[in-house]
Amino acid sequence: MLLLHRAVVLRLQQACRLKSIPSRIYIQACSTNDSFRPQYPSLTFSADNSSTRGWKVMGTLLGVGAVLAYQDHRCRAAQESTRIYTKEEVSSHTSPETGIWVTLGSEVFDVTEFVDLHPGGPSKLMLAAGGPLEPFWALYAVHNQSHVLELLAQYKIGELNPEDKVAPTVETSDPYADDPIRHPALKVNSQRPFNAEPPPELLTENYITPNPIFFTRNHLPVPNLDPDTYRLHIVGAPGGQSLSLSLDDLHNFPKYEITVTLQCAGNRRSEMTQVKEVKGLEWRTGAISTARWAGARLCDVLAQAGHQLCETEAHVCFEGLDSDPTGTAYGASIPLSRAMDPEAEVLLAYEMNGQPLPRDHGFPVRVVVPGVVGARHVKWLGRVSVQPEESYSHWQRRDYKGFSPSVDWDTVDFDSAPSIQELPVQSAITEPQDGETVESGEVTIKGYAWSGGGRAVIRVDVSLDGGLTWQVAKLDEEEQRPRKAWAWRLWQLQAPVPAGQKELNIVCKAVDDGYNVQPDTVAPIWNLRGVLSNAWHRVHVFVAP
Amino acid sequence: MLLLHRAVVLRLQQACRLKSIPSRIYIQACSTNDSFRPQYPSLTFSADNSSTRGWKVMGTLLGVGAVLAYQDHRCRAAQESTRIYTKEEVSSHTSPETGIWVTLGSEVFDVTEFVDLHPGGPSKLMLAAGGPLEPFWALYAVHNQSHVLELLAQYKIGELNPEDKVAPTVETSDPYADDPIRHPALKVNSQRPFNAEPPPELLTENYITPNPIFFTRNHLPVPNLDPDTYRLHIVGAPGGQSLSLSLDDLHNFPKYEITVTLQCAGNRRSEMTQVKEVKGLEWRTGAISTARWAGARLCDVLAQAGHQLCETEAHVCFEGLDSDPTGTAYGASIPLSRAMDPEAEVLLAYEMNGQPLPRDHGFPVRVVVPGVVGARHVKWLGRVSVQPEESYSHWQRRDYKGFSPSVDWDTVDFDSAPSIQELPVQSAITEPQDGETVESGEVTIKGYAWSGGGRAVIRVDVSLDGGLTWQVAKLDEEEQRPRKAWAWRLWQLQAPVPAGQKELNIVCKAVDDGYNVQPDTVAPIWNLRGVLSNAWHRVHVFVAP
Repeated sequence: MLLLHRAVVLRLQQACRLKSIPSRIYIQACSTNDSFRPQYPSLTFSADNSSTRGWKVMGTLLGVGAVLAYQDHRCRAAQESTRIYTKEEVSSHTSPETGIWVTLGSEVFDVTEFVDLHPGGPSKLMLAAGGPLEPFWALYAVHNQSHVLELLAQYKIGELNPEDKVAPTVETSDPYADDPIRHPALKVNSQRPFNAEPPPELLTENYITPNPIFFTRNHLPVPNLDPDTYRLHIVGAPGGQSLSLSLDDLHNFPKYEITVTLQCAGNRRSEMTQVKEVKGLEWRTGAISTARWAGARLCDVLAQAGHQLCETEAHVCFEGLDSDPTGTAYGASIPLSRAMDPEAEVLLAYEMNGQPLPRDHGFPVRVVVPGVVGARHVKWLGRVSVQPEESYSHWQRRDYKGFSPSVDWDTVDFDSAPSIQELPVQSAITEPQDGETVESGEVTIKGYAWSGGGRAVIRVDVSLDGGLTWQVAKLDEEEQRPRKAWAWRLWQLQAPVPAGQKELNIVCKAVDDGYNVQPDTVAPIWNLRGVLSNAWHRVHVFVAP
Repeated sequence: MLLLHRAVVLRLQQACRLKSIPSRIYIQACSTNDSFRPQYPSLTFSADNSSTRGWKVMGTLLGVGAVLAYQDHRCRAAQESTRIYTKEEVSSHTSPETGIWVTLGSEVFDVTEFVDLHPGGPSKLMLAAGGPLEPFWALYAVHNQSHVLELLAQYKIGELNPEDKVAPTVETSDPYADDPIRHPALKVNSQRPFNAEPPPELLTENYITPNPIFFTRNHLPVPNLDPDTYRLHIVGAPGGQSLSLSLDDLHNFPKYEITVTLQCAGNRRSEMTQVKEVKGLEWRTGAISTARWAGARLCDVLAQAGHQLCETEAHVCFEGLDSDPTGTAYGASIPLSRAMDPEAEVLLAYEMNGQPLPRDHGFPVRVVVPGVVGARHVKWLGRVSVQPEESYSHWQRRDYKGFSPSVDWDTVDFDSAPSIQELPVQSAITEPQDGETVESGEVTIKGYAWSGGGRAVIRVDVSLDGGLTWQVAKLDEEEQRPRKAWAWRLWQLQAPVPAGQKELNIVCKAVDDGYNVQPDTVAPIWNLRGVLSNAWHRVHVFVAP
């Protein structure tokens, strides 16, 4: 035990040293054109100088220390390492009652007794229960260290059946049959078309959302486009010339790289549903993610086609190469004034977090319109034109608009409301989650905050008592450019739990630099499509006795 | 009676004809450099094609009809026309108990029995009780018609004492002694410095606020500047030249004219005070007004001094020619990026509603920063410079910032919050007023809505039941330019009063084109300076049995 204690102290010292070296971990894993491939994760570890996540490493090592102290209780694993299991058997072990099993490569592990010791928290390990660890380790490169592999080896109970690798059959009559394979951590709201969000506990683990768990909002099947024959058609201005751009052509424009948060208009719709039924996918707090996007500026491409900003109002219409069985493509538009403004930084993006766009996110080219609702960031971009009117697509004119709570499907007049472009200020709590039990003493509350139109988040207020009293959260120190605050702020608050408190009603609300605030409650902003759900976010938790 | 009825019908017909001719009445009265002079009102009537206020004229005429029907009950007035009254006597007659007296020129009228018949409503006539009618007739040119004068003549009870015109003594040791004379309708929140707002019932009578009742927010005594010797000093860029501009020089720049709403950061502060004490003037809903401003563009003037938009953040600092006894001038700043952006339309304004600026509003030159808090629209402008930092003035750095409700004067860190620039979405009810009794049957609710940063108001929701159910108000049809919606929208709703209802809790809330909304309640946005008070506006009224 003395030896073990010494090991723990040694690791603690390492951790403290590490803490003084800023080490932001972020991941550019599995972001290939084929989206996520669970069999071949490419783990990469990239540390930069931007943040203060040393504590995370320390947490991991503290956890490892605890495990080392625990290991003499555990010896079953190695003895049972010759047994063979099917994938199906593994997938049935997902709870403390059945045992919690995971796989790495061809090896099977019973981590039931390790779950509570997991340095990142039990909930994160539970995301992998019954399946492979690789997709999760791909997100969190901290696992890719020898001592973690050594630790895991102790829980080995056998091997996967080598004959159990059956290729999935492709149903060719299914328009979605060719959709890419997705990351298992995604919480799926709809399979066809595919719509999914990362779970809250992963969402704010990184300022940059890893590509495999970036929220996915598809309206149609994912097209499978050949980058060699891909062409982007830009309709020329009168007197200008139309362009047919290959990927190489696009790369020949000056390359710009910016960090932008995308949010679906329906983010947090599930809270509106609790007020009254709405039409739409049940997004929780995860229809929002942040990536570093690179590509050509739309203003440069439009200028080459002879377009310039005109006095009369005009719109830039985008058409996707995804289409429904009738051939109708996804479409949307933004005002020409935004498209032509170099300061608005609208991109024709071909890279996401340093990788070619994943198929689910628009390979090979999508529009990125910083500060604007996700619906205008058209994916699999095929055609760009300048029109006197907004796009006539369903999604521009008959969807993605806000209405009074008094308007229902019998009375709605879609022409009476403007299409959503900039979004209002937003924030949500990602930890703890609703219904969780937190330790007494001190509670750590984490979340995100963002606003549309490049407006910076200047403050997040957090309440433990349902909004009666407030504390100011600490904003992560990511740089925000004035008028170009395109990306979210992550925030956290460590707060003492009031003595004797058995429950907490945790609430957050953000303020942007136009001093816009979130509304207190959901009902007065309820609307029939369940968009623009940005009331205070509330979670109710229990305090451990 | 038949004759009288015929007269009413005739006037009704005239009114209906008038209704079909759009006739927006707005006033450019009393807007001289000496601000309001009650002795010499310059009444002007200007009708344009922009709106639908014909009903107002019809209302007046209907009222006149009612009065004509009533006149045979009234004959006292003419018989008593020789009596002489002092101003003091007149000023003591301001209620139904004492009698309600008013003056026009040297004539005194007892309008006690006319008040309830006043076509514009009793409350508007009561604003003039005990004093001269001229300041109010100057606002509402509809009075300047022979039939109104004939009507009034019937209520004459005597003449003002001709010896009663004593010039006010000027107390020269008082730094405010030279402040201009103000319009009596203004509700004064502070005399020294002068801070006053128009009453709600006048505020939304006109889309353009008449100069004499435009809300006034002074921080210091009003300087008395000679337009002939006035110079505006523009500090030149390195390598550029400093400018010393006379008024004529400013007029030589291209002239731009725009309609802009100004709002004080403290508008509606009185509602915050009800939650918990704050430091600041008790503004109600009237610290907001709209004018048509004309002047040179700041970007043109700065360019002439050699300034251009630089990559590093910079600020344009403004200094007023008003100063405190230590010589400290009022000052504020805005980002250079806004100042240099032609689309932001920042003006060095020398005209307000077609007149030279009134002294209270910055004669001869003030800054107008569309979409931005009033505090940055520096009046009596003396000096403009470009600096790497924001203005070091008290009002930029130690005031006009928002904080969490948890922050008090012991804990406030002014450096932790950005200076207010753009303001959040705002709306308020101006009719009916809190505590009023409304007719059963139908209620008319009126108000204003506005948002900062050029964001257009797209909807106003009104509730009669404290926010449980909502109806969409009708927005006045003033043109709003995309991204340059600098001016408010007036709105109204005619709604049936639910049968049997004895009280109404009327609420309004607005939505802007970034789909920002107002927060439900005041307490969660309370802050120690009582700024940014934009919760739903609520009035409680009684329903006449």
